[in-house]
Amino acid sequence: MTAKHRRLLILGEGFSHDPHYGKTMRGIIRYGPDPVVAILDSARAGETHEGIPVVGTVADALRFDPTVAVVGVATQGGRFPPAWRELLKSSIAEGLDVESGLHEFVSEDSELVALASRHGVELRDLRRPPIGLSVPTGANLEVDAKIVLTVGSDCAIGKKTVAVELDLEARRRGLESVFVPTGQTGIAIAGWGIAVDAVVADFLAGAAERLVVEGAERGGKLLFVEGQGSLVHPLYSGVTLGLVHGSAPHAFVLCHVPGSTEIEGCPGHPIPPLPDLVELHERMSLPARRAKVVAIALNTSGLDDDAAREAIAAAEAETGRPADDPVRFGSGPMLDSILARL
Amino acid sequence: MTAKHRRLLILGEGFSHDPHYGKTMRGIIRYGPDPVVAILDSARAGETHEGIPVVGTVADALRFDPTVAVVGVATQGGRFPPAWRELLKSSIAEGLDVESGLHEFVSEDSELVALASRHGVELRDLRRPPIGLSVPTGANLEVDAKIVLTVGSDCAIGKKTVAVELDLEARRRGLESVFVPTGQTGIAIAGWGIAVDAVVADFLAGAAERLVVEGAERGGKLLFVEGQGSLVHPLYSGVTLGLVHGSAPHAFVLCHVPGSTEIEGCPGHPIPPLPDLVELHERMSLPARRAKVVAIALNTSGLDDDAAREAIAAAEAETGRPADDPVRFGSGPMLDSILARL
Repeated sequence: MTAKHRRLLILGEGFSHDPHYGKTMRGIIRYGPDPVVAILDSARAGETHEGIPVVGTVADALRFDPTVAVVGVATQGGRFPPAWRELLKSSIAEGLDVESGLHEFVSEDSELVALASRHGVELRDLRRPPIGLSVPTGANLEVDAKIVLTVGSDCAIGKKTVAVELDLEARRRGLESVFVPTGQTGIAIAGWGIAVDAVVADFLAGAAERLVVEGAERGGKLLFVEGQGSLVHPLYSGVTLGLVHGSAPHAFVLCHVPGSTEIEGCPGHPIPPLPDLVELHERMSLPARRAKVVAIALNTSGLDDDAAREAIAAAEAETGRPADDPVRFGSGPMLDSILARL
Repeated sequence: MTAKHRRLLILGEGFSHDPHYGKTMRGIIRYGPDPVVAILDSARAGETHEGIPVVGTVADALRFDPTVAVVGVATQGGRFPPAWRELLKSSIAEGLDVESGLHEFVSEDSELVALASRHGVELRDLRRPPIGLSVPTGANLEVDAKIVLTVGSDCAIGKKTVAVELDLEARRRGLESVFVPTGQTGIAIAGWGIAVDAVVADFLAGAAERLVVEGAERGGKLLFVEGQGSLVHPLYSGVTLGLVHGSAPHAFVLCHVPGSTEIEGCPGHPIPPLPDLVELHERMSLPARRAKVVAIALNTSGLDDDAAREAIAAAEAETGRPADDPVRFGSGPMLDSILARL
C-alpha cells in the first residue's frame, strides 16, 4: 500500500467538511505517505481544502493525474450511500484503483469487480480481516514493549491522531516507537494493521493481541495503539472493551472534547464526567495488567487559545492527571508525562 | 430447524464429558425440540449418557436412524479439531445433514460442500450472521417488553440455561415470555436467533438490538436474553459489553459458580468478588437505561445440597440480592424475585 507513485484522489462526496464522517480524509491528508492530488466533493467543486483542489467529478480530477481513488468517509454502519455506487464506477472506469475502509466490501461487489477486471484496476478493502484470526493466547502479556492505548469519551474525537502524534514525537527523539493501527484510516496511514471493528466479534481481543505482537516484531519497544469507540458508546462499546483487553496496555491516554456531555449522534446517551471516565477505564483494564490513565488529551479545536488553556487546567484539576492538547500545543510535554509514568 | 422427524446424532468426539466444551451437547439434549438418538464419542462407545446411547463411529449410529449430525462441541476459537473433518465427511457420506455452531463454517468448506451435494444433504451453520446487520438505531429502548439479560463471572457457567429455565417457568405461569437466543446452542434450542459472537464486531450491539426487537415481535412482553462471555473475561469481554448495551436490559441476572476465583482456562486472570461484579454490571449498563442485578444465579452443581444452600445464603449476605440455584432448586422463586423488581 505504500508503493511509489501512488497519487490519491480522495472521494469525500458530501462529507469533506464533516468533522465526524470526514475523519478518514483528514487522517490521510495529514499523516498518509502518499500525496493527495485532489478531493472529490461536488458541493465544494472549485474550492481548495488545506491547499488541495476540490473537484466535482472523477473526470474533473484526471488533470491532477491520480492513480488511486480512496473512499475518504466513514459512514455509520460502514455502508455506501446509494449515490456512491456511481462515483466508484466512474473511478474504476477512469482507470483508478479503488481503496475503501467501509464494512461493505468493494472487492465483494460483483458489478464493481467485473468493471475493475475490464479496466485492469484493483479494488482493495482496508477493513477486510486477515485470515486465521482467533482468540488471544496470552502473548499480549508477553510482548517486550510498553503499550499505550488511546481511549476516549466518544468516537471521532482524536484517538488515532493522538496516537500518531505521540509516535511521531517519540521517533523524532530516536525512541523505538511504533504506531499500531486498529482502524481503516490508521491502516491507510501506516500501511499495515487490522480494523478490529470488522473482525468476527469473538476474535476482537485476539486481533488486538495480534496487533501488539506485530508492533513489537516491527521493532517497537514503545507501542502507541490507536483506540476505537468508547466504553460508554451505546453503539461501539464492545469493540472498545475487546481492544482494551486484547491489546493489554500498560497505560491509557484518555481523549475528550471539553464540554461535551452527550455521545454525538445519540441523544439521551450522556458522557460521564472526566473523573468517572478515568476511574472507569482503570477499573476495566485487565486485572492481570492494571493500566492507569497517564494523560488526558483534550481536543480543543472548537476553542480559542485562552479557553483551550483553561480547559486543560480544569481537566488537570478535576482528574489529577496531566492534560494537554497535543495536536494544538505539540505532543512533547504529553510524551514526557507518559514516559515518566510507564 | 424444527421440522418434524428430525432425529439427532450429536457429534461429541472427545468432549461429551467436558463441562465446558460439551455445553452445546448438553443444552440440546436438555432443551432442544428434537430427539437425540445417539451421541458419538469414540472413547465412550457402548456407554449411555443421560439414557442416550454413545457410539464410536457414524456407521455405528445408523441403527438409531438419525437424520441430522449436530456438532455438539464449542471449541475455543470455534475451529474444528483436525480429526473432526473425517467425522463430518462420514456423516455426510452416510446421508446425514450437518448442523454446526462453530466459527469455521461447514457451508463454506469446498470439500464438504461438494460431498454434501453428491449425497444430497444440507450443511447448516448456526453461527452464520444474517445479512443486513448494522449499528443500533435506538429501537432497543422502544421495545414494548421487559428485558432481562443473564450475565456472569465466566463462560460456560449457565447463562443460557438460567435464561431458558426462567422463560420456561414464566410460560408455565401463562406469561407472554420469550427466550432470546444469542449463541449457537440457544439457536439450536429455539430455532431462531443470532450468534452475536459471530457478527462483524461493529454490529454487535446492532445484532443484540435486532434480537430484542424480534423477541417482542414474537409476542414477548418479558424477554429472557441469553448472555455471552463475561465483562471480566480477557478473551470475550467485548462480545459481552456489546450485548449488554445493545440488548438494553431492564435487569440483570448474574450467574456465578460459588468459590471460583479465576477465569477458566486463563491462569492469572482473577474473577472479582461477587459484590464487585454486581456493581460493575450496574455501572456498565446504559446510562439511558440503568439496570440492576435483581438476582444471583449460582451454579452449585459441584456442591452437595447443604453446601449449595450455604453458598446461596452467603451470596445473598454478600450482595444483598436474592440468590438461588434455579436449575437445582427450581426457577419459581427466582422468577418471583425478578418479577417483583422489574
